[in-house]
Amino acid sequence: MCQLLAMNCNVPTDIVFSFTGFAHRGGRTDTHHDGWGIAFFEGSGVRHFVDHQAAIASPIAELIKHYPIKSLNVIAHIRKATQGQVALENCHPFVREMWGRYWVFAHNGDLKGFDPILDGPYRPVGNTDSEQAFCFLLQQLRDRFGDTPPAMPVLRAAIADLVAIIARYGTFNMMLSDGTALFAHCSTKLCYVIRQYPFDKACLADEDLSVDFSQVTTPNDRVAIIVTTPLTTNETWTEFAPGELKVFVDGLPQS
Amino acid sequence: MCQLLAMNCNVPTDIVFSFTGFAHRGGRTDTHHDGWGIAFFEGSGVRHFVDHQAAIASPIAELIKHYPIKSLNVIAHIRKATQGQVALENCHPFVREMWGRYWVFAHNGDLKGFDPILDGPYRPVGNTDSEQAFCFLLQQLRDRFGDTPPAMPVLRAAIADLVAIIARYGTFNMMLSDGTALFAHCSTKLCYVIRQYPFDKACLADEDLSVDFSQVTTPNDRVAIIVTTPLTTNETWTEFAPGELKVFVDGLPQS
Repeated sequence: MCQLLAMNCNVPTDIVFSFTGFAHRGGRTDTHHDGWGIAFFEGSGVRHFVDHQAAIASPIAELIKHYPIKSLNVIAHIRKATQGQVALENCHPFVREMWGRYWVFAHNGDLKGFDPILDGPYRPVGNTDSEQAFCFLLQQLRDRFGDTPPAMPVLRAAIADLVAIIARYGTFNMMLSDGTALFAHCSTKLCYVIRQYPFDKACLADEDLSVDFSQVTTPNDRVAIIVTTPLTTNETWTEFAPGELKVFVDGLPQS
Repeated sequence: MCQLLAMNCNVPTDIVFSFTGFAHRGGRTDTHHDGWGIAFFEGSGVRHFVDHQAAIASPIAELIKHYPIKSLNVIAHIRKATQGQVALENCHPFVREMWGRYWVFAHNGDLKGFDPILDGPYRPVGNTDSEQAFCFLLQQLRDRFGDTPPAMPVLRAAIADLVAIIARYGTFNMMLSDGTALFAHCSTKLCYVIRQYPFDKACLADEDLSVDFSQVTTPNDRVAIIVTTPLTTNETWTEFAPGELKVFVDGLPQS
């Protein structure tokens, strides 16, 4: 199984602290050493980094840990291969363009017998169940809404419907973002924390490192961190319910 | 105007030497300081780095100069904005998926009044003429060949036809690759060199740096470097003719 990390904020924020702890699970504090990746939205553009090396051994992961890229929506993934060999084309997150926006997707879990007919414009490049699921999602959204994205409540309902269909085939914890919102679906394991005023100190679970967010934030900042298992030891993480899809906008889960 | 650099090889090769000279044109030896980008094919996967900072000031360019990523096909671009503001979504190269392969595209030049109807699945995310041209190219290829890529001679003829259509609107020097071949079209300025046995020393034009390729190659290696203006002072660069499309496979231009 893999691990997922995502961030959704109301002001562009760097993910250096959370990624530092997360990257340790890529081969040091956990066994996810079959590649990793991270995608940052910056405006409507995306910075996309993937590497088939373990995150702890990757010079690119080292760069991310020290280069504060500020973003409203970030999705990261460390991989332990279950389907598809260890290769760059199988590293998450995956990126496609639809409706003139980039869509970023990452998956944790394993789908059995999921073999959708992909006869639209989205085809997998690699050979993972995850990229198949992403292409299926986009194809279905295009089939339903054509060339124009629907309003958020309609889009959310469609995505909830589609992820439930995919989740019938196995474990489907996933993160999806078009740069305006972050969709997080829990099959088995996902939790989140909202960091907002008054900010406090947070201590990483995977490394002896802490940060006092009150020193690096303004009272208006709000950041949602969503992850497979809690990243810090002294914050209150809220678990998702199995089957739950949450949509985060401006650092808050939408009701 | 921008500058282009591409590499096509018969064995995975790093581009550290050529990129080091090229990156100097991104703000030091030339005025291309409105962002830069580079994409490396690795198997069927792509590593894609873009930055809206000048290449000489970019920590990511610094990483690329020191991290030897080996690839058969690389496309790089440094930008001087003519259309579209300085923003990440306007940095080349652009990446899309078609036929289950990634396609990478970069453009040097300026198109006037080019406003194709884009009613297929490929839409620009940013607001450059270049990304419009890329989406037009892919849409036309999909319209002509449907879901299955044609044989190389047919594909090459179609691309030659399409780039000629686009070039009617202005300067259209461009690089395009699907990871198996590199297509390079010259409107005004493009040249190439083939490095092969017996390898010799090469001296960069933009920095006091040389490399003796005979020390880092095997007799079977063959590398084509294609660039806007020659990168080295002591190699023989061949200029493209205006209007010429060349296809490079395994480090050689195809006749």
